Amino acid sequence: MIVVRTVADLRSALRDRRGGRIGLVPTMGALHEGHLSLVRAARARNDSVVMSIFVNPTQFNEQADLAAYPRTEESDVALAAEAGVDVVFAPDAAEMYPDGFATTVSVTGPVAETLEGAQRGRAHFDGVATVVTKLLLAALPDAAYFGAKDAQQVAVLRRLTADLNVPVELVVCPTSRDDDGLARSSRNARLSPDERARALAIPRALQAVTDAAASGIRDSRALRDRALDVLAEGMIALEYVAFVDPETFEPAAQVDRPTLVAIAARVGATRLIDNTVIDAGGA
Amino acid sequence: MIVVRTVADLRSALRDRRGGRIGLVPTMGALHEGHLSLVRAARARNDSVVMSIFVNPTQFNEQADLAAYPRTEESDVALAAEAGVDVVFAPDAAEMYPDGFATTVSVTGPVAETLEGAQRGRAHFDGVATVVTKLLLAALPDAAYFGAKDAQQVAVLRRLTADLNVPVELVVCPTSRDDDGLARSSRNARLSPDERARALAIPRALQAVTDAAASGIRDSRALRDRALDVLAEGMIALEYVAFVDPETFEPAAQVDRPTLVAIAARVGATRLIDNTVIDAGGA
Repeated sequence: MIVVRTVADLRSALRDRRGGRIGLVPTMGALHEGHLSLVRAARARNDSVVMSIFVNPTQFNEQADLAAYPRTEESDVALAAEAGVDVVFAPDAAEMYPDGFATTVSVTGPVAETLEGAQRGRAHFDGVATVVTKLLLAALPDAAYFGAKDAQQVAVLRRLTADLNVPVELVVCPTSRDDDGLARSSRNARLSPDERARALAIPRALQAVTDAAASGIRDSRALRDRALDVLAEGMIALEYVAFVDPETFEPAAQVDRPTLVAIAARVGATRLIDNTVIDAGGA
Repeated sequence: MIVVRTVADLRSALRDRRGGRIGLVPTMGALHEGHLSLVRAARARNDSVVMSIFVNPTQFNEQADLAAYPRTEESDVALAAEAGVDVVFAPDAAEMYPDGFATTVSVTGPVAETLEGAQRGRAHFDGVATVVTKLLLAALPDAAYFGAKDAQQVAVLRRLTADLNVPVELVVCPTSRDDDGLARSSRNARLSPDERARALAIPRALQAVTDAAASGIRDSRALRDRALDVLAEGMIALEYVAFVDPETFEPAAQVDRPTLVAIAARVGATRLIDNTVIDAGGA
């Protein structure tokens, strides 16, 4: 495995690999089992696997969150090598945003402006859209791998890759969860044992909604109430429980087709998100 | 030569050509000798030449200009074939901007916000940046060819292709001029004989500035006065005469390095632009 720091070196490293399929796993480092499951998915369907590691400053809406974001490159590189990554692309901010950088890729509409877009501000998804466009065009992979936990990010990226004719397949892998059900996130490392126990209300709330939908409840307000009951036990600062179309993020009043249930909450100082797709209509 | 209407068909048509170099000439049709000089430049350095023909509605700031823009696809296709184009990509607006389209590529700063960006509004270069990004990613050419007449557009596109890591070389070809000196433009067809004669004040003004700079004048206000004197003879509605850095479009008070002199004016109902680069410092 090689580690490259510049777009030029990345392209050189990939030149001889273009005869086969290339898979890209974009990450912000602080690798956990969730990232490694993306690498395994990429490994199974591609001849070469590239992982990018870049803590993208433009998508952080809080300087404290950016400053606290774990940076563990040495162990990340070791984990990537072990998981079968061929090329790690780990640029610094000056390589990605040199002096004079002045271009933004922006998606509008509910998919980018509601929920995470509303809570974190417009700049968040502009930052995500711009950096992922750069990563995709630097590596030109056949496929790029993302976790379902970041459902809205995936929907924004589906919109932008279709709209801009970016020649890539986006592959969404199931959310990786710890044994206790908590969605794996690099931010989980910041939770105290007590906070972690309270955070479990989030996956429990999603399960309660799934069960209620399976029992025949279609009204999303009624389903939301089930989630709120469970979340109340966690004493967490809820930001939203939303029922939306998984592609457009238009609100879904009735769960009569596949519907994304998305939750964002703060547990102590740590902001967590999680989601699931329910399909009561198809049951 | 084949004509394709969809991105999917364009990619199919180019699949077997990727072993060699591909050159792209983006146009809005209404082909004239200027476009054909771009095709010749592309032909000389590439194994395959693609021409796109698309009158992009999102870059027009005036509906009247869009409605009046000449559409001559049949003769364009014949001219393209004669000039050695291999593939014409002529999508309709629904192929480029399907329902739900929601993505914009935007460049900020003087390069996109002054002169044409100020006169035509922010949406103009957003429209250019977005459609050219789409065309580049649909065709993935090795090189794309533009005329120097659209100097600010080229500077915006240089910024965005560098910023977004679009893997393409931008090639700028000299402005093509009629025998009388007028820069070739599809919009020239709208000029009456009298308007055309008056429009010649624009290239004459650029020549006067070039001569004055060669004679040792460095102050751009003094050079600008020379241009204004000549333009006054044309009785045209001047929008701007500007002296700027050709890359950043920052204003240049002194011509002590290569400096772009850009003019925009209306002659009757027709808006014309032209420019030249002077380099008094190097003389």
